[in-house]
Amino acid sequence: MSNKKKIINDPVFGFISVPNEFLFDILQHPYVQRLNRIRQLGLSYYVYPGATHTRFLHSLGAMHLMQEAVSVLRQKNVDISHSEGNAAMAAILLHDVGHGPFSHVLEHTLVSGISHEEISLMMMQTINREMHGALEGAIQIFKNEYPKHFLHQLVSSQLDVDRLDYLCRDSFFCGVNEGTVASARILKMLNVCDDKLVVEAKGIYSIEKFLVARRLMYWQVYLHKTSVAAEQLLIKILTRAKQLATEGEQLFASTALQYFLYNTITAEDFLWSEDALRQYALLDDSDILAAVKVWAEGKDVVLKMLCTAFMNRVLFKVKMLETPLQETERNNLIEQYRNKWNITSQEAEYFFSEHSSVTNTYSPQDDNIGILYNDGTIKDVAEASDMLNLQVLTKRVEKHYLFYYQLK
Amino acid sequence: MSNKKKIINDPVFGFISVPNEFLFDILQHPYVQRLNRIRQLGLSYYVYPGATHTRFLHSLGAMHLMQEAVSVLRQKNVDISHSEGNAAMAAILLHDVGHGPFSHVLEHTLVSGISHEEISLMMMQTINREMHGALEGAIQIFKNEYPKHFLHQLVSSQLDVDRLDYLCRDSFFCGVNEGTVASARILKMLNVCDDKLVVEAKGIYSIEKFLVARRLMYWQVYLHKTSVAAEQLLIKILTRAKQLATEGEQLFASTALQYFLYNTITAEDFLWSEDALRQYALLDDSDILAAVKVWAEGKDVVLKMLCTAFMNRVLFKVKMLETPLQETERNNLIEQYRNKWNITSQEAEYFFSEHSSVTNTYSPQDDNIGILYNDGTIKDVAEASDMLNLQVLTKRVEKHYLFYYQLK
Amino acid sequence: MSNKKKIINDPVFGFISVPNEFLFDILQHPYVQRLNRIRQLGLSYYVYPGATHTRFLHSLGAMHLMQEAVSVLRQKNVDISHSEGNAAMAAILLHDVGHGPFSHVLEHTLVSGISHEEISLMMMQTINREMHGALEGAIQIFKNEYPKHFLHQLVSSQLDVDRLDYLCRDSFFCGVNEGTVASARILKMLNVCDDKLVVEAKGIYSIEKFLVARRLMYWQVYLHKTSVAAEQLLIKILTRAKQLATEGEQLFASTALQYFLYNTITAEDFLWSEDALRQYALLDDSDILAAVKVWAEGKDVVLKMLCTAFMNRVLFKVKMLETPLQETERNNLIEQYRNKWNITSQEAEYFFSEHSSVTNTYSPQDDNIGILYNDGTIKDVAEASDMLNLQVLTKRVEKHYLFYYQLK
Amino acid sequence: MSNKKKIINDPVFGFISVPNEFLFDILQHPYVQRLNRIRQLGLSYYVYPGATHTRFLHSLGAMHLMQEAVSVLRQKNVDISHSEGNAAMAAILLHDVGHGPFSHVLEHTLVSGISHEEISLMMMQTINREMHGALEGAIQIFKNEYPKHFLHQLVSSQLDVDRLDYLCRDSFFCGVNEGTVASARILKMLNVCDDKLVVEAKGIYSIEKFLVARRLMYWQVYLHKTSVAAEQLLIKILTRAKQLATEGEQLFASTALQYFLYNTITAEDFLWSEDALRQYALLDDSDILAAVKVWAEGKDVVLKMLCTAFMNRVLFKVKMLETPLQETERNNLIEQYRNKWNITSQEAEYFFSEHSSVTNTYSPQDDNIGILYNDGTIKDVAEASDMLNLQVLTKRVEKHYLFYYQLK
Repeated sequence: MSNKKKIINDPVFGFISVPNEFLFDILQHPYVQRLNRIRQLGLSYYVYPGATHTRFLHSLGAMHLMQEAVSVLRQKNVDISHSEGNAAMAAILLHDVGHGPFSHVLEHTLVSGISHEEISLMMMQTINREMHGALEGAIQIFKNEYPKHFLHQLVSSQLDVDRLDYLCRDSFFCGVNEGTVASARILKMLNVCDDKLVVEAKGIYSIEKFLVARRLMYWQVYLHKTSVAAEQLLIKILTRAKQLATEGEQLFASTALQYFLYNTITAEDFLWSEDALRQYALLDDSDILAAVKVWAEGKDVVLKMLCTAFMNRVLFKVKMLETPLQETERNNLIEQYRNKWNITSQEAEYFFSEHSSVTNTYSPQDDNIGILYNDGTIKDVAEASDMLNLQVLTKRVEKHYLFYYQLK
Repeated sequence: MSNKKKIINDPVFGFISVPNEFLFDILQHPYVQRLNRIRQLGLSYYVYPGATHTRFLHSLGAMHLMQEAVSVLRQKNVDISHSEGNAAMAAILLHDVGHGPFSHVLEHTLVSGISHEEISLMMMQTINREMHGALEGAIQIFKNEYPKHFLHQLVSSQLDVDRLDYLCRDSFFCGVNEGTVASARILKMLNVCDDKLVVEAKGIYSIEKFLVARRLMYWQVYLHKTSVAAEQLLIKILTRAKQLATEGEQLFASTALQYFLYNTITAEDFLWSEDALRQYALLDDSDILAAVKVWAEGKDVVLKMLCTAFMNRVLFKVKMLETPLQETERNNLIEQYRNKWNITSQEAEYFFSEHSSVTNTYSPQDDNIGILYNDGTIKDVAEASDMLNLQVLTKRVEKHYLFYYQLK
Repeated sequence: MSNKKKIINDPVFGFISVPNEFLFDILQHPYVQRLNRIRQLGLSYYVYPGATHTRFLHSLGAMHLMQEAVSVLRQKNVDISHSEGNAAMAAILLHDVGHGPFSHVLEHTLVSGISHEEISLMMMQTINREMHGALEGAIQIFKNEYPKHFLHQLVSSQLDVDRLDYLCRDSFFCGVNEGTVASARILKMLNVCDDKLVVEAKGIYSIEKFLVARRLMYWQVYLHKTSVAAEQLLIKILTRAKQLATEGEQLFASTALQYFLYNTITAEDFLWSEDALRQYALLDDSDILAAVKVWAEGKDVVLKMLCTAFMNRVLFKVKMLETPLQETERNNLIEQYRNKWNITSQEAEYFFSEHSSVTNTYSPQDDNIGILYNDGTIKDVAEASDMLNLQVLTKRVEKHYLFYYQLK
Repeated sequence: MSNKKKIINDPVFGFISVPNEFLFDILQHPYVQRLNRIRQLGLSYYVYPGATHTRFLHSLGAMHLMQEAVSVLRQKNVDISHSEGNAAMAAILLHDVGHGPFSHVLEHTLVSGISHEEISLMMMQTINREMHGALEGAIQIFKNEYPKHFLHQLVSSQLDVDRLDYLCRDSFFCGVNEGTVASARILKMLNVCDDKLVVEAKGIYSIEKFLVARRLMYWQVYLHKTSVAAEQLLIKILTRAKQLATEGEQLFASTALQYFLYNTITAEDFLWSEDALRQYALLDDSDILAAVKVWAEGKDVVLKMLCTAFMNRVLFKVKMLETPLQETERNNLIEQYRNKWNITSQEAEYFFSEHSSVTNTYSPQDDNIGILYNDGTIKDVAEASDMLNLQVLTKRVEKHYLFYYQLK
């Protein structure tokens, strides 16, 4: 029993206490344990070899920050009951449970029409049934249906503990110190006004730094061209595999991967059959990697080449595009691959792709960050900061790329 | 070309420069890239969830330290030519290339009779052929056949850059700060006397700390009971799978894993057939993990239970043993599992194991650490330090455990 | 001799090597050693008790970064001779040598009409004479009279090693992690185009973070209201002491402090008499602190109260002002102190002060930060960054405060 | 009021909360504020220029660790009331309040016959009177007269929070990472058995590391030859000054320093006159440094030379001695200085000194560190650890040095 009150070493935050059995049991659930086998940053290790930390560790870290946030708010006389605190911690522990391996890749290939958030919710509901309703509060908070809305904001908003953890953690494991965010300091500045999370005015410089760090991490890590190139390659691989599967080709795959290769699984399937969720819950990075290696030795020349390139880190080259790819350039590329390998035009299309990376650092319309002044007034951070450029912060920045296999 | 002079971010040492094309090409070799898919600490993430760093990153870090060591020694007028420096860096970059996934597990099950060092050497020889002999020097250093023996000591000795990297790195990713070693400081204290690596006397306290840190990491991380319990479970899984394979059972496995499950591969095979090395070079963590998940849904009840336990982190319990397990205790255990699941005695043996963890912190007979005094004399560290207990340091410490599946 | 090639431990950058005797001799000069007794951040320790690092350590750290910068630029084929490298290192080592204790305070009281930069130059010239002209190059670089202007930019510009060191160092010792700047990364991105220091385009996010960190440090540390309150109090103390000295009162003071209390020293004096510089070179934090403690026991009631308040950390209270202090408010304050202590109006003025803190994060007119693109074009950072608000960055921000002694 | 619940930034432990007004008021006491002007490591900055942290910061850090320790013990159901917690924190906050500037130096020169611990106690009693008895508990704990003895052990024993803080802190500011101790981890392992502080068995490796780190810090920092050389020089300076004062010479000195120069103050004086304590409480580093600088310009040739050497970092040279200095060597030295400067033999003795540095890492007789096993038994750490050499750990290590002014 007391064994369940565990302390876990975290290289980022030091000792993390699992505060009670309820949370310990969630942590031990196979759905959560599976996150130990899914890397938080997918293929970023092709650029940052230290970035092999898992979604499990991120979830644990976010739970830790939630515990801190709840304790800070309580000290400021914000009313959060014991069970509300637990619910908030459970909600953040499970907020990413629905992620699959290489999420961005998967959502473009094998599992379409349903987001990882929706799957997270389904998984939470399943665990809730197994735990006889103990997750009701967590689910309400997650869905923003709980009366104290600020608890949802701690889980999901411009300034949630999710971001506070992942910016710290991802920058730590990538070795990009500039992405570090003063999580502890920001947490100390939190408060609640009219059921809304706010930051006390003296924290404004930390918030500015948080937003700048976030932007830096986007362009330097999350949307790094080489990671995206690796993702595009894996998308092509899975698309090709799915195409071959559809054509009846026998492909090596674990049971779970088979399920998603040989069936077209829609949001409906997740709703009406238990099978989809059950199989999904078995998928992790190893299914994809193990299959790609076997496919690299297979007989389809397209799949073989793509997989070999992927394993040996011969990634797509990147070119920034000012305008969408012109028809003639497109045809040139196709022609080139056709001539080289004697393949069809359709097959040639597997060797290049266009892709846009989009981000905006801050969207006040969604759920703004309020700055609380000593006189009780609240301003949106984009207004409060004279440093930050409102129009820029809220602007979508979009960059277009051509990814292509470079012939020697 | 200049693209090949890369800088790689390392969370432990900051920026690591790959000094030239020669080393960059080795880094890009599929054998080395494969280490990106093998975790340095195998199953330690069951205890330390941050410990997901790879053998690739360790090799890179060790290369970085070698570069530092060479530069320090040159400043002290130790003669190391450009090509010797390169050879030493190549040797350390490749010193672990022969590791398989979950090395300790594998060496007890699928790949026996040959050590990972021997496989490293074979892989180095293969790469050497591909690179037209460019690795000759590195191989000589690795095998300790190079005239300047101290270069081998930098690769492999009581105080090699391998240990300096892995102690720093493993403690960093585990979040066990106490294991940290002052690598930079120790490197600054290195010198060479009569072709032997020595540490200058003022570094003795750092060496003491290095030895104590090493001991601490052994018992707190490398031989942590829970990691070892996970390893024992995986050993049982692979042993059972191999048993079933031998009996002709069809088991899911990637091509490479199939090869080692359905054949008995000896050192001879590695020597006489290219196939063994080729298949081995395809194995990584994903083959094992993907298979275990499928086996957990299979029909052999023993394999099924073991795999389910493994995936869901229901690990073997541990009991320390003063004496080897008595026949009666052994029979009791077997009886218990037989009754519970209606299995044979032979099958019941898969649910427990005896294991001894052994370590000695320092073995002067192998290759001692010499302390160089200002007057030119050299003493073994165990003599030079009045703090450290010679007998103890050099003593094998052995702990005996019973690991067993706990019935509820 | 070899003793002079020293390695010094720095908690911020690790080991710092003093590269040669020339620099070692400068480091040992009494003018430089004196910086060991002057705190880099003056009275900031009243807010950040860890901020006790000295101007010596900052100068040493800046020299270390200069060494790195020179080495990075040489790798990019920027021509910097051995003696130019030495001169640049000497220049940065000495760039702050003219600082007195509590610089901002001193420049408003005892030493007026001459800046610490001018005194630094005089000291450099004195050392140069002692070293038989060995500092010629350093002086030229410092004065921006050396043909390679980028060397001066490394010493003094928007992105000099001075700032790179002090932002890192001050945030480190204050424990304000958010002020940390990726010095190592920024240095790696430096280049020189047409004799002008530039940053390569991929470093733009680091530069953005550098500017935001700088702004944060200004408002959170350098202009922290409590530090400024302490400074204002010390200004009042020294002004009162000088007043009493002028009136012929005997005050305890070290010889050097006497010199500046009992004489009115102008820039002229520094030019025409050696005495001024000689006495100035003897001043450090201890002269001021030792005197203040004695004065707290003295007989002038004003000086006594101010000094007692200062020693016991009963600092001035702060009120932000929208407009300059009105005549009536001013008179009210004076009246209040007069009544309380039975002092004159003139004496009452020692118990409050108005003060404006001013900063602009970036001034392109001075010496802008150029961003170098792959196509060879260069843009000013304020243009290149879509994040940063040009108007804001370059705007002077001014905050007006009333500091006053609070009666109980 | 709420202003008194402060959070203070500490570069070592992050945010430190002053938990309540009681402790805040102690922190603001002039006796405690004075520690802001006394460097924790005295003259160590001559070797480690970052080591300028103050006794104030150490006291604050130790209070923070005490807060953690109390909270850990309470979680383990050790009964510590609110006021006991406060008393323990007050006791540790004040444990070093009696330190003077450059303690080791002072205790050999101006303030003899009374230890800083005795003065700490006197100061605590003075503050206690001012606070109307609020420090009764703290004083009892400090004197080990409080019934719960383990509270005293937290303040002062082999494993007190004093050491846990200073090892961390001193290694941090010196930049000697190897001295770092896992304070947080060790605190988590604390427990109380039969009113005695113990460490749970799984913490044994951390304790071993703690002892080794401590030993390392002793020889590498606290007893570093260069620091000791600087101390010896300052002892000679103060001894000479006192000698001249006794002879009626007029020497520059602050009022407080005058008091100790021109009077012979004994333990009696502290007991029977308030003056001694009042003057002592005014002494800090600045009194000594300001005086030394003035003396360097004075007319006594011995004092002048010693002070000039000290200011310009021309420290005594060190020679290790196997045996006490022989009469002939002694006479040779004296002769040398006499001839050089035309001084008396007695005066020549100011230019050299013999000194022994002594330490033992662990003294079980005083107050041993108990290791608590799962079965409830307790062993002394020196017995429990097979690594550490009992005889060695408990052995006094003594090194004899000759310090002398080197003539050119």
